Amino acid sequence: MKASVYIATSLDGFIARANGGLDWLPGVESEDNSGEDYGYHAFMDSVDYLVMGRNTFDIVLGFGGEWHYGEKRIVVLSSRPVEIPERIADTVEWMSGTPREIVEQLAERGAQHLYVDGGVTIQRFLNEGLLQQLIITRIPVLIGDGIPLFGPLPHDIKLRHVETQSYANGMVQSRYLIDG
Amino acid sequence: MKASVYIATSLDGFIARANGGLDWLPGVESEDNSGEDYGYHAFMDSVDYLVMGRNTFDIVLGFGGEWHYGEKRIVVLSSRPVEIPERIADTVEWMSGTPREIVEQLAERGAQHLYVDGGVTIQRFLNEGLLQQLIITRIPVLIGDGIPLFGPLPHDIKLRHVETQSYANGMVQSRYLIDG
Repeated sequence: MKASVYIATSLDGFIARANGGLDWLPGVESEDNSGEDYGYHAFMDSVDYLVMGRNTFDIVLGFGGEWHYGEKRIVVLSSRPVEIPERIADTVEWMSGTPREIVEQLAERGAQHLYVDGGVTIQRFLNEGLLQQLIITRIPVLIGDGIPLFGPLPHDIKLRHVETQSYANGMVQSRYLIDG
Repeated sequence: MKASVYIATSLDGFIARANGGLDWLPGVESEDNSGEDYGYHAFMDSVDYLVMGRNTFDIVLGFGGEWHYGEKRIVVLSSRPVEIPERIADTVEWMSGTPREIVEQLAERGAQHLYVDGGVTIQRFLNEGLLQQLIITRIPVLIGDGIPLFGPLPHDIKLRHVETQSYANGMVQSRYLIDG
């Protein structure tokens, strides 16, 4: 079982504006990256569960009413119950618990690879030593303020750089492993 | 005349620990990067003046008494007078003034390329639109807290990615231009 982060950040390290806004993120339909998905679908295909916090869930629910995760199984973490819209109730469930409890519960179901998403959730898993892979795509823009990818840590975390590739539109994607 | 930043940051965006500490930065003598200088000397050779804030000056002065800048001309920015040790007084001078005033003053002397260093100073030049190039080397470590490279901005700043290269020791260096 491993858990990965796959996320885009501004060059100054934000995953969204303070209000959750992603307007600074190039749209997938922009001219210079047509057809390029930055490894997203291959990554998603390798994942059993996507684990996200309630804030992230609220944001993705708000994306024009469309649901972008198909049949992928989603776990929404929250200490309080989360109402799951009927149309996605087959694949989305609410769980509460510590990151370790969530990992154990999903491992018992046979999960091999978790995709951990959302600022607060990523930081909680990282602090608990429960992330093994970070795939970070840097967008060539400074936004000055917002929701940071990283936060305070109990101690330094050394990473092992695996590969970096850059794209014609200026995105730079790096993959790191966190050795246990 | 252009101004550049050439700096290393942790993956979480810090250029030093809160106390100025750089212990998380791989030493230049570490095994896996012998001889590799990450473009530093070529960059330094292209620079007429290194402009740094007082905090950074205090830190580099403290590096074991050694002076690492040779004959390079250094400008230390501070609103209050800075005492320059006699042994480096030929190449180091104190200036006060806004970033724009400094740039104008050095341009009048014929400077073509400034190296702007230090957290506060970089942010001030960036906020004033006075930086044209960022060369950022990411160290594969999260330190959780410290002096950030970037800070609040009056507006988004779009960057043009020029090139990225990674090194055997896991450092990833990206070069960006800021179009005026």
